[in-house]
Amino acid sequence: MSLLPVKQLLASETTGHTITVKGWVRTKRESKNAIFIAINDGSTIHNLQAVAEPGQFSEETLRLVTTGSCVAITGTLVESQGSGQKVEVKATDIHVYGTADPEKYPLQPKKHSMEFLREIAHLRPRTNTFSAVLRIRHALAFAVHKYFNDNGFFYLHTPIITASDAEGAGEMFRVTTLDMNKPPRTDEGDIDYKQDFFGRETNLTVSGQLEGELGALALSKIYTFGPTFRAENSNTTRHLAEFWMIEPEMAFYELEDNMNLAEDFVKTVIGYALEHCADDLAFLQNRLMEEEKSKPQADRSPMPLLEKLAFVVNNDFQRLTYTQAIEILLQSKPHKEKKFQYPVGWGIDLQSEHERFLVEKHFKKPVILTNYPREIKSFYMKQDEVDESAPGPTVRAMDVLFPGIGEIIGGSQREENYDKLMARIQEVGIDPSNIWWFLETRQFGTAPHSGFGLGFERLVLFVTGMGNIRDVIPFPRTPKSAEF
Amino acid sequence: MSLLPVKQLLASETTGHTITVKGWVRTKRESKNAIFIAINDGSTIHNLQAVAEPGQFSEETLRLVTTGSCVAITGTLVESQGSGQKVEVKATDIHVYGTADPEKYPLQPKKHSMEFLREIAHLRPRTNTFSAVLRIRHALAFAVHKYFNDNGFFYLHTPIITASDAEGAGEMFRVTTLDMNKPPRTDEGDIDYKQDFFGRETNLTVSGQLEGELGALALSKIYTFGPTFRAENSNTTRHLAEFWMIEPEMAFYELEDNMNLAEDFVKTVIGYALEHCADDLAFLQNRLMEEEKSKPQADRSPMPLLEKLAFVVNNDFQRLTYTQAIEILLQSKPHKEKKFQYPVGWGIDLQSEHERFLVEKHFKKPVILTNYPREIKSFYMKQDEVDESAPGPTVRAMDVLFPGIGEIIGGSQREENYDKLMARIQEVGIDPSNIWWFLETRQFGTAPHSGFGLGFERLVLFVTGMGNIRDVIPFPRTPKSAEF
Repeated sequence: MSLLPVKQLLASETTGHTITVKGWVRTKRESKNAIFIAINDGSTIHNLQAVAEPGQFSEETLRLVTTGSCVAITGTLVESQGSGQKVEVKATDIHVYGTADPEKYPLQPKKHSMEFLREIAHLRPRTNTFSAVLRIRHALAFAVHKYFNDNGFFYLHTPIITASDAEGAGEMFRVTTLDMNKPPRTDEGDIDYKQDFFGRETNLTVSGQLEGELGALALSKIYTFGPTFRAENSNTTRHLAEFWMIEPEMAFYELEDNMNLAEDFVKTVIGYALEHCADDLAFLQNRLMEEEKSKPQADRSPMPLLEKLAFVVNNDFQRLTYTQAIEILLQSKPHKEKKFQYPVGWGIDLQSEHERFLVEKHFKKPVILTNYPREIKSFYMKQDEVDESAPGPTVRAMDVLFPGIGEIIGGSQREENYDKLMARIQEVGIDPSNIWWFLETRQFGTAPHSGFGLGFERLVLFVTGMGNIRDVIPFPRTPKSAEF
Repeated sequence: MSLLPVKQLLASETTGHTITVKGWVRTKRESKNAIFIAINDGSTIHNLQAVAEPGQFSEETLRLVTTGSCVAITGTLVESQGSGQKVEVKATDIHVYGTADPEKYPLQPKKHSMEFLREIAHLRPRTNTFSAVLRIRHALAFAVHKYFNDNGFFYLHTPIITASDAEGAGEMFRVTTLDMNKPPRTDEGDIDYKQDFFGRETNLTVSGQLEGELGALALSKIYTFGPTFRAENSNTTRHLAEFWMIEPEMAFYELEDNMNLAEDFVKTVIGYALEHCADDLAFLQNRLMEEEKSKPQADRSPMPLLEKLAFVVNNDFQRLTYTQAIEILLQSKPHKEKKFQYPVGWGIDLQSEHERFLVEKHFKKPVILTNYPREIKSFYMKQDEVDESAPGPTVRAMDVLFPGIGEIIGGSQREENYDKLMARIQEVGIDPSNIWWFLETRQFGTAPHSGFGLGFERLVLFVTGMGNIRDVIPFPRTPKSAEF
C-alpha cells in the first residue's frame, strides 16, 4: 500500500508532492475563502487538515462531507498556513466513501458523557479519548510481550476452559453444551455432566497460574497474557467480568527476585508508553486536568499524569512487610483519630483506605508489601519460617500497591514442598484429586519458584488516568451487560 | 539474578570462572573416571553437561541425582573434553532441590508415544520435542505481535463472551451462571435468561472479526490475537475446541491489499522462526525424518522441514480465482481417473484432497484462491460485480492454502454497502437486531475494508512439522477432554 497513515503524513519532511489521505471527518469548518476539513484515521491523536477552495467542488459533494463521514482526499501536501500543524493538504479531489447523516450520527463534535459513549462502544474508538486509550493499550500490550521476550520468558497459552476450581479466586462462569431446558440426568436425578462436551463440569478460568507453574517447572521462565473471568456481581469502577491478565512464573526465583522482577517489569512497561505514546498521554493529561477543574482540590490528582508516570519509573518502590505496615497504620493519624472506616490490626485484609494511606500519604510512592498472614492468602503460597515479630504464621506473598489504584500486582513465592502444600490443601478443603497434576510437580523435580499476576486493565487505567475500568477495554463485560 | 540460563552458559566465550547452573537432570551417566550429568532448564534444546569426579560427592547426594530431579550445580566452566558441546561444568557442589523417584517418574529417557505424553501434559514440556514446540510457539506469537506493531496495527482485545451469534461459524459453548439443576423460568416456562449474569444468553466467541471491524473503522488497522471456541464434536488431528486466532482487519484495504498483507505476514512470521529457532527446528526436522523412516515413501514429507519453511518464505504464492481452480481440477488426472473421493464442479466447497492437489501437485507452492461462490461463504463478504466466467455470483473471499495443512488463512474484503449487506443478512436469516452495532458502521462513515483470520495452532503445526494439533498447544481442549 502506498497509502500513508495520517501520523506519517503529519511527520512529512518534504512538501509539494501529491498525497491521498483516507479517514473520517472530525470537523468541517467553512470560511469565506476556504473550507477546512479535519481528517483522522486513528493512527494518531492529531488530524490532518484538508483545505478546499469554495466553488472548486460541487455542492453535492461538500454536503456529504460531514462529521463522521469517511473520505479520501487527494491533493498537494503544503506547509500549513495556520498554527497547530506543520503541513496540510490543498485538496484537488474529494471522494466520499461513506456518509454520516448529521441527524442520526451520534458522535457530533460536542462533549459526550462516558456513560453515553459506553452505550455506543462500537463508535467510541472514533473519539479522541478512546482512540488515545486504545493506542496506549496497544503499546502497553506490546511492551509486555517485548519485555518478557527480551528477558528469556516464553509466552504460554494456558487454557481458558478449565475443570479445576483450585484457585478459589471467586465465582466462576459455567461452560456447557447441555440443553439448559432439559439437561440429561443420572439415575440419582443429578445433572449428568458426563454427557457435557468435555465429559465433566467446566468453567472459565480465573487464573492461568497453576498451569503456568507447570510451564515454569520445565521452561524456567514463562508468562501468560490472556483473558480471565470473574462471575462476581460487582458494579464498580474497578471490576470487569472479563479482563486480561499477565502472569509470569519463574523457576529458581525466590521472593526477592520476584519483587525485583515485578518492579523492573512495571517500570519498563510504563517507560515504554512514556516513550511511544507521548502525544496520546499529553492529550489524556489535559483531558484529566479539565475534568478535575470541577472537583474539590482534595479529589484532584496530586500530580499531572505524565509526571505521575515518570515518578513511578524513576523511583524505587518502598518495600516492607505486612507486619511493619500494620505498625505504621496503628501509629497513623487517621487511625488514632478514628478516620479509617475499617478497623486496623494484624490479620486484617488491608482495605483500599489503608493501602492508599501507605502509598499516597505515608511513603508517597509505590509500595511492595510482603509476608502477609497465611489466613488471608492463597493455599499455594510458600509458608514462612516463624517470624518473631509477626503474631501469626505468614506466607511469602508480595503485593505491589500503586497510587489511585491500590493493588496492581499480587504475587508470591510458591510452596514447593509437597508435604507442606498437601497439608495446606487439606486444611482449606481443596480436593487434591482435582489438581493431581499440580501436586505432581512437587513430587518430580520440584524447585523453588515464584510468580505474580497483573490485571492488564488496572495497568491501562493507571497509565491513561481514566476513571472507570469500563473505559479502558474495547467492549466491557459487566453484570447485565454483554452488548457488542 | 546473576543466574544464567543454560542457553547463555553454552554460548560462553570465556571459561575458567565459577558458575551455577539450575535445571532438571535429563540423564546421568557414570564411567570409571567421571559422572556425567546432563542438565536442561528449558531455555534451549541443548543440555549443559556437568562432570563430577567419583568420590567427590557423597553416595547419598549422587543417588538423588536421577532423570527428572531438579538440581543446582556449581563448578568451573571449562572447555568440553567430549564432542557435541563447547563447554561443560566441572562440578564442585551439587544441591538437589527436588527428587524424581525413578520408580514413579514417568519421563524416563526412552521413547514415549505422543498419546501417552498427552496424558501427562503437565510434564511433557520437559521433553525435547515439546519444549522445542513451545519455544517455537512463543517465537511465532512474538513475531505476530512484532509484525503488526512494526506495521502500524493496533492490538484490539475483542470480547470472549458474546451475545451475538452472527458468524454462524459453528456450534458454540454456552456461558452461564444459572443453576443448571433448577434454572429460573418465565411464566411461559422458558429458561429466564434475563436472570443470567449478563441478562441474556451468552456464548464463547467463535471469532473476533465483527468487533474487529468496529476497531478498523476507527483506528484503520487493528488485529486480534486471542482464544476462540468451537463446540464441534470433531475428533481429528486438525481440530481443537479452544484455539488461538489472529484476525487483522484494515480499513481502505481491498482484496489485493489483503492478499499482499496475508502473504507478507505469514512469510515474515515464518522467517522470524527460521532466524530465531534454528536449533529447535533442526531438532524437529531430525525427529520428523526419523519418524518418517517407517512410512511408505508416498506418505513422507516431500522436503525436509527447514527446506519447506525456506521455500514458503522465498517463493511467491500462486494466486488464482476459485473458478480457475475448478477448471484446473476438472482437467486434472485424478479427476479424470475418478481418483478424487468427492465430486468436482463449480459451487462445491473444496475438499482437502482438492486443495492438496492444487498446492502439492499442480502448483507445488502455497496458493491463494479468490472470488469464491457466494453461497459457500459468509454473509459479510463483499459481493463481486458479475464475473462473466463464473457460473454464479461470487464474493471477494481469499483463502491461503499451504502444503500439508490446507487452508491456513481465510479472509475477504467486507461488504461495506449497507443495502447489499442487509439484503444478504435477510437472505441467510440472521436477525439484524442482534448485530445492530455492526450494521451501523455501514451507515456512519462506511469504508472499503478487508481482513483475514489465521488459526495460530495451524501455523505452529506447519512450522514445527508436528502431526497432531493437540501437540502444539500446552493443554488441548477436545471432546471429553479438559484435564489440567
